[in-house]
Amino acid sequence: MVHSDRLLLGPGPSNPYPEVMEAFQRPVLGHLDPEFLSVLDEIADRLRLLFRTENVLTLPISGTGSAGMEACFVNLLEPGDTAIIGVNGVFGERMCEVARRCGAAVVRVEAPWGRAIDPQQLLDAHRAHPGARVLAVVHAETSTGVENEIAPLAALQQTDTLLLVDTVTSLGGIPVDVDGWGIDAVYSGTQKCLGVPPGLSPVSFSPRAVERVRGRSQPAQSWYLDLSLLADYVGTARRYHHTAPISMLYALHAGLGVVLDEGLEAAHARHRDAGARLQGALPELGFRPFALDRPLPQLTSVWLPDGVDDAKMRAELLVRFGIEVGGGLGELAGKGWRIGLMGHSARERSVITLLGALGALLQE
Amino acid sequence: MVHSDRLLLGPGPSNPYPEVMEAFQRPVLGHLDPEFLSVLDEIADRLRLLFRTENVLTLPISGTGSAGMEACFVNLLEPGDTAIIGVNGVFGERMCEVARRCGAAVVRVEAPWGRAIDPQQLLDAHRAHPGARVLAVVHAETSTGVENEIAPLAALQQTDTLLLVDTVTSLGGIPVDVDGWGIDAVYSGTQKCLGVPPGLSPVSFSPRAVERVRGRSQPAQSWYLDLSLLADYVGTARRYHHTAPISMLYALHAGLGVVLDEGLEAAHARHRDAGARLQGALPELGFRPFALDRPLPQLTSVWLPDGVDDAKMRAELLVRFGIEVGGGLGELAGKGWRIGLMGHSARERSVITLLGALGALLQE
Repeated sequence: MVHSDRLLLGPGPSNPYPEVMEAFQRPVLGHLDPEFLSVLDEIADRLRLLFRTENVLTLPISGTGSAGMEACFVNLLEPGDTAIIGVNGVFGERMCEVARRCGAAVVRVEAPWGRAIDPQQLLDAHRAHPGARVLAVVHAETSTGVENEIAPLAALQQTDTLLLVDTVTSLGGIPVDVDGWGIDAVYSGTQKCLGVPPGLSPVSFSPRAVERVRGRSQPAQSWYLDLSLLADYVGTARRYHHTAPISMLYALHAGLGVVLDEGLEAAHARHRDAGARLQGALPELGFRPFALDRPLPQLTSVWLPDGVDDAKMRAELLVRFGIEVGGGLGELAGKGWRIGLMGHSARERSVITLLGALGALLQE
Repeated sequence: MVHSDRLLLGPGPSNPYPEVMEAFQRPVLGHLDPEFLSVLDEIADRLRLLFRTENVLTLPISGTGSAGMEACFVNLLEPGDTAIIGVNGVFGERMCEVARRCGAAVVRVEAPWGRAIDPQQLLDAHRAHPGARVLAVVHAETSTGVENEIAPLAALQQTDTLLLVDTVTSLGGIPVDVDGWGIDAVYSGTQKCLGVPPGLSPVSFSPRAVERVRGRSQPAQSWYLDLSLLADYVGTARRYHHTAPISMLYALHAGLGVVLDEGLEAAHARHRDAGARLQGALPELGFRPFALDRPLPQLTSVWLPDGVDDAKMRAELLVRFGIEVGGGLGELAGKGWRIGLMGHSARERSVITLLGALGALLQE
């Protein structure tokens, strides 16, 4: 069977770091083996550094980013609760759907796709619904390439409403400051700016979010994602809950190590520089930016030049040059792309390679 | 950092096949890359051969075995439904907990730990609760090493009650016949008799189970595990749901390939022979069997010889000989072990190694 390799410049997965691929070869240990438990502890320590938090309850959920999203909502919401949710793309919509399935009433605060959500509008919605149990927003909207500002929402710390943030596409790529921004519950994914294949979702809960979980009137609707049970495995009790995905955890451990060895600021600078170079060059080739506010360096959304056939061009890039870029969603479907420069893929050489291939294809 | 390797003879994970470890090195592709989608299709084909089913809806859930359990229950049950559940160990208990969190009324059919559940008692319970939406039972109880007989439950096909079976510890180790036994929903795990690290849960739904999912009066409480959405990704629509865990899927693909290359019957025979050899030899060392009915060859539960210190002996095995065996659960906690011979670990050489180490330790 032929194995193709790709330069992964879609919205995720990105190319994994070589150190991550090596880590998959570590001998599998039991999930209660003392040596494995020390790896798990180190993962939590490393995640705390990346999230910039002191939160004790910091762990990787055994599923992809969407499992992390669901873990946050099912643990914090009970039927009848109100959740205020910022919506300016696919992942804000997904939050609404997950919250509804928890039996919550959802208050939507919308911005057009390609625009950022005004934090003041979220705070205004909170003033109108002060009893909301959760206010949730996506930090980096993967469907549009827009950053939503989180810092002003720290004001919620003065209230009983918990701040829940999606950092799937931001963690490791742009600054995330869980404690500084007063975030109570946060989830991320491994396959974006952490340079690890998909499969795990790091989450972190503030002390008051943990208190909310412990004080529920009924258990979370998900047993698999019940943080009150998971905390007894990753914490000192070491009580078996489910069998941890050992090899993926080795991979995450290694990916976090790469980011911390480089330095978080240096990793952010690398994402910023690569994104700036790409976003500066694309208009010269006829691409127009889709994200009109706060464009993310690690995920560039663009309209295709006039006359370019989306499917044909992406197939050429994939088959002839081994480069994956992502198709558009929503209004951008068939008419634009999402180009990721994340994790190990966030390098000048990725930009040069893509621009060279695009130049060749557009001239033909 | 030192990497220890182990002979994994606990209740899972087992040692992965070398071909599986190699598969982790395959280049990561995007989850919509045509080459990756063909891997996904092959995984489904291979799973159908192992499950012995023609079910179209056959796929790996992106979580461990407990996520597969939850996927089956949340898709098939709605609040107020009745579920009949066989309970003779930890995993039957877990089923009850998961069903309760779906809002179901649970009818328990119990047998003592170490004994099998009489299928006639399950059918009698069904006669008393003919409106039950689901009857669920664990095929191979990992907490006790007992096999529960499934074949007689095919009688449920004449009713509107769906048969849901846990094959986490049986698939690949002992015969499982999904279509022959009239199983409507089945889940398994990768880290037992398939010789793949933990992280995925193969599931399969019969046409009438799919009809039940499609006809729900409200969406499943889990978005992540919603099979009506997952079916659109693994099916021909190829609609993005969540980012598939690419590298774990390569590993599963390879593990299923190893089992099918060996031949399913040969793999069963290997598990049977290894288990028989171990279970024949342990009494000579003073261990007494815990499973009194239908002991599983792939998972042996035993009482420790008089005077043996559980924690000390397991630590010696682990540190001095690099062998992991599992502690007991329930009545067996601190007094007995669970010894797995599963997947790549199900070999005569594993038995010889363990018996040699035990002999040395017991003589000291």
